[in-house]
Amino acid sequence: MAALLRKSSSALVCAVSRHARFAMVYRSMASKTPIGFVGLGNMGSPMAKNLLKHGYPVVAYDIFPEACKEFQDSGAQISESPADVAEKADRIITMLPSSANALEVYTGSNGILKKVKKGSLLIDSSTIDPAVSKELAKAVEKQGAVFMDAPVSGGVGAARSGNLTFMVGGVEQEFDAAKELLTCMGANVVYCGEVGTGQAAKICNNMLLAIGMIGTAETMNLGIRLGLDPKLLAKILNMSSGRCWSSDTYNPVPGVMEGVPSANNYQGGFGTTLMAKDLGLAQDSATNTKTPTPLGSVAHQIYRIMCAKGYSQKDFSSVFQFLREDENL
Amino acid sequence: MAALLRKSSSALVCAVSRHARFAMVYRSMASKTPIGFVGLGNMGSPMAKNLLKHGYPVVAYDIFPEACKEFQDSGAQISESPADVAEKADRIITMLPSSANALEVYTGSNGILKKVKKGSLLIDSSTIDPAVSKELAKAVEKQGAVFMDAPVSGGVGAARSGNLTFMVGGVEQEFDAAKELLTCMGANVVYCGEVGTGQAAKICNNMLLAIGMIGTAETMNLGIRLGLDPKLLAKILNMSSGRCWSSDTYNPVPGVMEGVPSANNYQGGFGTTLMAKDLGLAQDSATNTKTPTPLGSVAHQIYRIMCAKGYSQKDFSSVFQFLREDENL
Amino acid sequence: MAALLRKSSSALVCAVSRHARFAMVYRSMASKTPIGFVGLGNMGSPMAKNLLKHGYPVVAYDIFPEACKEFQDSGAQISESPADVAEKADRIITMLPSSANALEVYTGSNGILKKVKKGSLLIDSSTIDPAVSKELAKAVEKQGAVFMDAPVSGGVGAARSGNLTFMVGGVEQEFDAAKELLTCMGANVVYCGEVGTGQAAKICNNMLLAIGMIGTAETMNLGIRLGLDPKLLAKILNMSSGRCWSSDTYNPVPGVMEGVPSANNYQGGFGTTLMAKDLGLAQDSATNTKTPTPLGSVAHQIYRIMCAKGYSQKDFSSVFQFLREDENL
Amino acid sequence: MAALLRKSSSALVCAVSRHARFAMVYRSMASKTPIGFVGLGNMGSPMAKNLLKHGYPVVAYDIFPEACKEFQDSGAQISESPADVAEKADRIITMLPSSANALEVYTGSNGILKKVKKGSLLIDSSTIDPAVSKELAKAVEKQGAVFMDAPVSGGVGAARSGNLTFMVGGVEQEFDAAKELLTCMGANVVYCGEVGTGQAAKICNNMLLAIGMIGTAETMNLGIRLGLDPKLLAKILNMSSGRCWSSDTYNPVPGVMEGVPSANNYQGGFGTTLMAKDLGLAQDSATNTKTPTPLGSVAHQIYRIMCAKGYSQKDFSSVFQFLREDENL
Repeated sequence: MAALLRKSSSALVCAVSRHARFAMVYRSMASKTPIGFVGLGNMGSPMAKNLLKHGYPVVAYDIFPEACKEFQDSGAQISESPADVAEKADRIITMLPSSANALEVYTGSNGILKKVKKGSLLIDSSTIDPAVSKELAKAVEKQGAVFMDAPVSGGVGAARSGNLTFMVGGVEQEFDAAKELLTCMGANVVYCGEVGTGQAAKICNNMLLAIGMIGTAETMNLGIRLGLDPKLLAKILNMSSGRCWSSDTYNPVPGVMEGVPSANNYQGGFGTTLMAKDLGLAQDSATNTKTPTPLGSVAHQIYRIMCAKGYSQKDFSSVFQFLREDENL
Repeated sequence: MAALLRKSSSALVCAVSRHARFAMVYRSMASKTPIGFVGLGNMGSPMAKNLLKHGYPVVAYDIFPEACKEFQDSGAQISESPADVAEKADRIITMLPSSANALEVYTGSNGILKKVKKGSLLIDSSTIDPAVSKELAKAVEKQGAVFMDAPVSGGVGAARSGNLTFMVGGVEQEFDAAKELLTCMGANVVYCGEVGTGQAAKICNNMLLAIGMIGTAETMNLGIRLGLDPKLLAKILNMSSGRCWSSDTYNPVPGVMEGVPSANNYQGGFGTTLMAKDLGLAQDSATNTKTPTPLGSVAHQIYRIMCAKGYSQKDFSSVFQFLREDENL
Repeated sequence: MAALLRKSSSALVCAVSRHARFAMVYRSMASKTPIGFVGLGNMGSPMAKNLLKHGYPVVAYDIFPEACKEFQDSGAQISESPADVAEKADRIITMLPSSANALEVYTGSNGILKKVKKGSLLIDSSTIDPAVSKELAKAVEKQGAVFMDAPVSGGVGAARSGNLTFMVGGVEQEFDAAKELLTCMGANVVYCGEVGTGQAAKICNNMLLAIGMIGTAETMNLGIRLGLDPKLLAKILNMSSGRCWSSDTYNPVPGVMEGVPSANNYQGGFGTTLMAKDLGLAQDSATNTKTPTPLGSVAHQIYRIMCAKGYSQKDFSSVFQFLREDENL
Repeated sequence: MAALLRKSSSALVCAVSRHARFAMVYRSMASKTPIGFVGLGNMGSPMAKNLLKHGYPVVAYDIFPEACKEFQDSGAQISESPADVAEKADRIITMLPSSANALEVYTGSNGILKKVKKGSLLIDSSTIDPAVSKELAKAVEKQGAVFMDAPVSGGVGAARSGNLTFMVGGVEQEFDAAKELLTCMGANVVYCGEVGTGQAAKICNNMLLAIGMIGTAETMNLGIRLGLDPKLLAKILNMSSGRCWSSDTYNPVPGVMEGVPSANNYQGGFGTTLMAKDLGLAQDSATNTKTPTPLGSVAHQIYRIMCAKGYSQKDFSSVFQFLREDENL
């Protein structure tokens, strides 16, 4: 009967709009029909578990059988492919590591689009190039379904505790439908505009974050070499115009703050590799839109060099350590 | 009698310490003896007037006769040279545009040091190279007097309203004596450490400020080109880890905030030339201490290019305009 | 009969190699069968005319009818689509402005691959992302044909006079077949390695060129401000380790050399927009391969800013003018 | 009698010119009177020995007694201070590691200027800030003597073999007198203009050299990651517009060339520390003259980071190794 409902709704969708903008009228939002979930990695797995906790049946897929196995033990149903997920669920969340993976999961030979039902709501929480999000949205719309990009900020901890922030791009009328699901996994769900703007907001934030972090690291290092006490310098910056999140909330200098990665040998937190990836996406977007981003570009290069020099797994605030004179020299 | 007091105190100073560290015991802090003031420019003039307002007699000098004339009308006594000021006052504040000017005013042929009294307190509020501050301090100490660097943050408006922030470097025992005067001109007086650390704190803050501002400008520009509404983007950044003073208090994008230079065609505020100067000092200090400052360095270059391309007199947040596509292209 | 030959040859190709590496044995290299040419822009048009001059019949296509019309007057046959070209010629050269255009011409709904004959030789002289070249090569090979990337260096003048340099990537056994055609249009044809390496060589060269040019411009500007005569400085650099192509062959300072764009108000030469495009490709490749390119990245940003500030149409050596103080300031 | 000659000549100098521009008429250029030499380090020692080889008596001083001892064994006379050298010789060459050292040797309490004879020719071959050279020249001229800056290019090997290049700044009429001595130590002696331009030429060359070297390193690294053979890539660059001294004469990639530091684990050559120092001087000069040098500035930062990360003693071409992915990652 769900299939029948879908069929008639989708016929209507086709009749009234190729953008599927009224599809949500017919999608049964209130009932807890199964949610599809593709991508059960470090982030995806705790996110999907939070859907289970909120009482949603989950139909999941991951390319790695072990990830599926572990998730199956949590009570979810495992599918054989993204296409299979799309056959069983009309609301699907994807959480994938790269643009290439997202393209494969949506448009590949066993991809979601092979079996997606008209009117389905597809939410991609991967952090990818906004241009790819737009491409995916077009392909999804051609099938009469709805696509939204909803990348997250906050790491594995926030994924577990359901405290992620989602930045959502897509047709505004669908935002409530998306929010219903995303609030199960996140504390903030922000509507950013048309498709791709969720990604845009995410990479903009992370670009400015990287600039602020490197800037804080080199400023603190300079101040220390000029004879300032690091805690005092941080205090002065934080009451002045130099203040930023990296100086007042996540200071990269060991001994200035507690409970941050710099207090724990740069373990945990947001890895340098992930920051380098996001800065690469920012650069791709800047190049595509011919936008000059001089500091964003240098920030990208610094994190690339750090990855090449053994900092990949450390928190991105380890740039303070990278810029500092090695102690044994 | 003051002269006598000086004489005996200074004899004692010589006896007990070549660093003049106990000099303040003998300097009559409470009484409102004349304060010397050298440098009556855009900043110095309103600062000196605030001393007058607090009941201090002021003995002043400026290289430009007009500046002296105008200040004389405010009730101050005008001297013929920095040396002359030093003869008439044992507490002197200097506010000069560059390291070279400061060297001249202190060590020149008619400089303060020609006639400085032992035990005098010399406070330099210029923003100059911390290495020059240290040099001046040494020369001053040789004469048995005390030197402190106390650069300010806050512009002409804060100078007028007495709301400057002073960052003070020097012997800690003298800090109270300095604070007595500086609180007449500023709302915050922060002790930073030994001589030169006031300058260090100032240029560190301004370097991080410049990095945050350029970063905010390029991030906002990128977001706009990717389809985000600027106000919404600013809101998202400010609730996330991209937050910084330039995004939440002084946003460079016209239309995002009111009451900031970007809302007024980048008039007023803190000029690009002044920022370029402070970044030059930061680079000098970084080179002297062999500290890598990759983003500070690029920020310096960007403000240099802006100065060469007609942005000298605009507020430093005009970097948003500089990076943006010219509308007539 | 040609069709028959193709058919049997292609059968053999399929039998012996999915990489079509023996296809050239059966393609009639010596005879002057028609050459396909897609893309009759500023560069493509004179290149195709040089094929005509060497006695090759040309079957051409361009998306702009005027470009086709003009070329038809030169004696070429005009086709209706890339697919149509592929039906009429088994050696095809493409010269297109961007990766997106190349993808469309090869894999679009009327693209070459819709009708390409097995064993055909497809040479793409566009400057595009090497990753796209590799993708195209895979798609072409699936059809049993051969793909080579062969971007050029040298501008419109070299295209007219047949003095281009071709940097060729692809299966080595096919290089002679490619060279036969490319030597009609260029003075140097260099084999660079597997598919994509032609593009790689091109963007590597142009990245280093841009770095050398900006470096020369800022060095000459600094020397002039320090009191050096520009001609003398250029002479000293060119006999020392600062020497580079931009200092000794294409000096960006007006008055130092004759016959270069700097002697002609930066008219002609290699436009800033094109340099920005190539630097964007270099950055894409660097990001894809996680290679740090700090100076290449800053060079990219500088040319981006120049494009935003009115230098798009000037020769890329105009960076000297961009970095120099505006005379009316 | 020499003293008498000096005396009368210097009287005349005072009479005719405070710039001492005719002093050389009276200095006995042809005769091999003693040459003073201050600074017997890695460079100074072999330079001074070449003067001895050319038959000049040498009166030398170095702050390190061992350096003096070793040089005394070579047949030179050792003095007790720079002032003492100035008493015994009216042509003096100085070769010192920094601006501060040069200031001390010339203007310190036992400095050359304490005893310099009128009409003396003082040639400083140190690489220092051109602004300091100008300051020294003024101080020297006040004493009626002549100052020229003549920094060298070429390392210890060239110093030994007498193959240095001297870049000379100073009064043109004195150039022949300087050249007479400098040709004993160098193969090229280039007149650059007024005082300070020798330094200017040196730091301009080295800034462009650093930019070319880092550019070559990152370009070669990118090409290799894109699948190009390094030797082939170097060949292509060197026949194209990417060509520079670092690509064709001193390639930083191991295996591309022989007889360069990259072929010998980056031993020998021009150390990263020295390059960082020269780039610091270039930045100081750029800041003083308000000249934007975006790539020079980033190059400086890269060499600073390398010094902090253990590359100080390696040849500056080791930037290739620095940017490359560590093999054990």
